[in-house]
Amino acid sequence: MSELSESPSSAHLSERRVSGEKLFQGRFLEAWRDTVEMPDGCSATREYVVHPGAVVIVPLIETPEGLKLVLERQFRYPIGEAMIEFPAGKLDPGERIFDCGRRELLEETGYSAGEWARAGTMHPVISYSTEFIDIWFARGLTAGERALDEGEFLDVFLASPEELLALCRDGRVTDAKTMGCMLWLQNVLSGAWTLDWRSTERCDAEESKPPPRTGAHAAVRP
Amino acid sequence: MSELSESPSSAHLSERRVSGEKLFQGRFLEAWRDTVEMPDGCSATREYVVHPGAVVIVPLIETPEGLKLVLERQFRYPIGEAMIEFPAGKLDPGERIFDCGRRELLEETGYSAGEWARAGTMHPVISYSTEFIDIWFARGLTAGERALDEGEFLDVFLASPEELLALCRDGRVTDAKTMGCMLWLQNVLSGAWTLDWRSTERCDAEESKPPPRTGAHAAVRP
Repeated sequence: MSELSESPSSAHLSERRVSGEKLFQGRFLEAWRDTVEMPDGCSATREYVVHPGAVVIVPLIETPEGLKLVLERQFRYPIGEAMIEFPAGKLDPGERIFDCGRRELLEETGYSAGEWARAGTMHPVISYSTEFIDIWFARGLTAGERALDEGEFLDVFLASPEELLALCRDGRVTDAKTMGCMLWLQNVLSGAWTLDWRSTERCDAEESKPPPRTGAHAAVRP
Repeated sequence: MSELSESPSSAHLSERRVSGEKLFQGRFLEAWRDTVEMPDGCSATREYVVHPGAVVIVPLIETPEGLKLVLERQFRYPIGEAMIEFPAGKLDPGERIFDCGRRELLEETGYSAGEWARAGTMHPVISYSTEFIDIWFARGLTAGERALDEGEFLDVFLASPEELLALCRDGRVTDAKTMGCMLWLQNVLSGAWTLDWRSTERCDAEESKPPPRTGAHAAVRP
């Protein structure tokens, strides 16, 4: 049993790409099968979905009834249910992460934010997808018109942090990205974790490029 | 803007399956493309991975230095990094959820647990996979021999809840299932959420069947 404090070298765990073939290219999903060399020198195959990455937004809004969160309810076909989740969406080709977050918040909820804070990132499915989800908080919201994609149907509603937490506890919220955001929100609200808030203009000026591709995504599409 | 307290009817959001075709069958990944009828009567396609479901375990162990968690470091090829995560694994065909949790904990870490508590469930990727991850806590651990699958390389280590929380905050833990477990753990340790602990024998006796298939998984494989 190793200890956390030991050197985190991972040479004895790492896999090296030998070759790869595209398994299929759907309209939305793209999957690859790579042959890899394992730490013991043996070969194995790894199948995975290539994903451009995504952004999830935790939108905070001050109301006369206290702090509220902007949430969505959307039918999720693979699960077969209308699910409660924070606004989120995929990066368009060549899009910067901040632009994606700003665009998705506006398109799906109609809100624009005056200030943003990047909390961190999440990998929803590390065994079979390259997807990352960047986590951003937004505040200073101004309501406007939403502009859903064609064929996108979703409800927007407000809930307090306490209400959303209770939904997580009771199993009515099971979306992993929303639960990951709640871990962030709970620690931010308690003061245990801090956020670095910046104006929309400063976020826009500071981020210069789309994110670099990493992991298997970089290997199949350098 | 709707309110949380309003009726959660989702008829105006739901999609109905019209037909489906298997996009491909890999050694690990299986993907489908379904044609669906949207709420406005128009057609759309939905592409998704069919997944048998999984279990993640939060193993608690009392040590002279206080409460610790049993964690793993494993190279995750799609991400290209050795990642810190709670023990987890997929259901074998026909396997019950509890049996899967007990098996994965033993195989990957060598530990057997005297008591278990089911916390809830998580959906890691609601837009393109049927996967669910059941969340279980385990305590009363007894160390034994682990039995990794062929080609499985992973380190097992202990960390305190405070250490793991700091790793989440600092971006060194980005696995969404582990972050979802931390939301549970933090609220359990604070006393805000409670767990229903049962002996291993009782869990074994009470769960009679593998989980029913739900959502798109039930449609393609009734």
